[in-house]
Amino acid sequence: MQRYKCTISYDGSAYCGFQIQPKDRTVQGEIERALKKLHKGIEVKIQASGRTDAGVHAKGQVIHFDSVLDIPLGKWELALNTLLPHDIVVTAVETVSNDFHARYNVTGKEYRYFIHLAEHRDPFKRNYAYYYPYSLNIDAIQEAMEHFIGEYDFTSFCSAKTDKEDKVREITGMKLTQEEEMLIFSFEGNGFLYNMVRIMIGTLLDVGRGKKDPQSIPAIIKKKDRKAAGKTASANGLYLWRVFY
Amino acid sequence: MQRYKCTISYDGSAYCGFQIQPKDRTVQGEIERALKKLHKGIEVKIQASGRTDAGVHAKGQVIHFDSVLDIPLGKWELALNTLLPHDIVVTAVETVSNDFHARYNVTGKEYRYFIHLAEHRDPFKRNYAYYYPYSLNIDAIQEAMEHFIGEYDFTSFCSAKTDKEDKVREITGMKLTQEEEMLIFSFEGNGFLYNMVRIMIGTLLDVGRGKKDPQSIPAIIKKKDRKAAGKTASANGLYLWRVFY
Repeated sequence: MQRYKCTISYDGSAYCGFQIQPKDRTVQGEIERALKKLHKGIEVKIQASGRTDAGVHAKGQVIHFDSVLDIPLGKWELALNTLLPHDIVVTAVETVSNDFHARYNVTGKEYRYFIHLAEHRDPFKRNYAYYYPYSLNIDAIQEAMEHFIGEYDFTSFCSAKTDKEDKVREITGMKLTQEEEMLIFSFEGNGFLYNMVRIMIGTLLDVGRGKKDPQSIPAIIKKKDRKAAGKTASANGLYLWRVFY
Repeated sequence: MQRYKCTISYDGSAYCGFQIQPKDRTVQGEIERALKKLHKGIEVKIQASGRTDAGVHAKGQVIHFDSVLDIPLGKWELALNTLLPHDIVVTAVETVSNDFHARYNVTGKEYRYFIHLAEHRDPFKRNYAYYYPYSLNIDAIQEAMEHFIGEYDFTSFCSAKTDKEDKVREITGMKLTQEEEMLIFSFEGNGFLYNMVRIMIGTLLDVGRGKKDPQSIPAIIKKKDRKAAGKTASANGLYLWRVFY
């Protein structure tokens, strides 16, 4: 039995999220279906670094699974990609020791969020960025971002639907870049709560439009009240970009 | 009655082509549905510069239609885009004289074809470029391209399914650029036959892989035989880029 660590990229548009569900089409469901086929009908369970929601994308999701198959390391990608739908792609496969765990061993993650600022919608970006036709004060957003860096209780930035008790997380880095009409946020941290990035984006957009003061972020964090923060920005702009171990 | 010229961009992935059909979802069907709604149930027919096939995209398709509605020129885009699905976007609306015709007045068109050259498929490009994991001799392709410039009978580069008698067209410009993993072909001409760009691409890829000599293009054109040319490259890489009047 060999444990494998896989890096996976997927377009989440057509999926009801990552986690397997009895009826709906999910990323985990498709990957386990491909593994089952490769293992001649024997079920192979995967473990991921974490879930992603419906419509959320991944550039570098990480999973692990165990296999008895004698496939040379360089052939795993092709073997899996041949069986997977084209909106899920395995980009790397490594062998790891049997105590590696894709979720428990995570030391950090990077998420990115894409916002399309333009006069017109772009039909080619509609599933891949949040269309936002309003002008934004980028300096104010940059100022607000700095207040998120550090270790805080992020209850205000967590969906009430969470099952996590401990809401303390550390944001280690935040960056904002602009490439033509695309505004790209990068968030790095040791962990992210349910909807945390999307609520931070919704709040930063309020700051960018002058509805919230950049200096109000520390008070919003302190309130530990979801209602103090901004709206949850749409799923289509969010990408699980990298997982650190 | 005022005639309007509209420029339209669409992601063709979800459509059975441009031209309206009784049962299938088409771009024309969606636009006429939006216009009908805007005109309180009165049908408004559109005329386009030409059709595009299932899965083919447009950055600058042009249509015209007549309307009695008293909508200020600057409000037409918003009025239509609000009623259209997000994969079809009106990017410009102009008033034109009543003898303007989106098809008959065309003086030329530009098509682009995107090829994704990479080791792995990219789930975010799967509908927007032809994935081609083989190495290509770009110099040979460039050499072959020059033989297409000019006025020729392009029967060898036309689907047998055409209803056009006259197969003489003039290619006025061809360009090849590479941006990271993306190979982008641009074709300009006074008109294009059914599947012509896709068959030229299939032939140029044969040249790039050494299956055909760059010098063989004039002979392939002369044969006036579809079987002499390469395969029809897939629809997902093709974009109607601009229409000239």
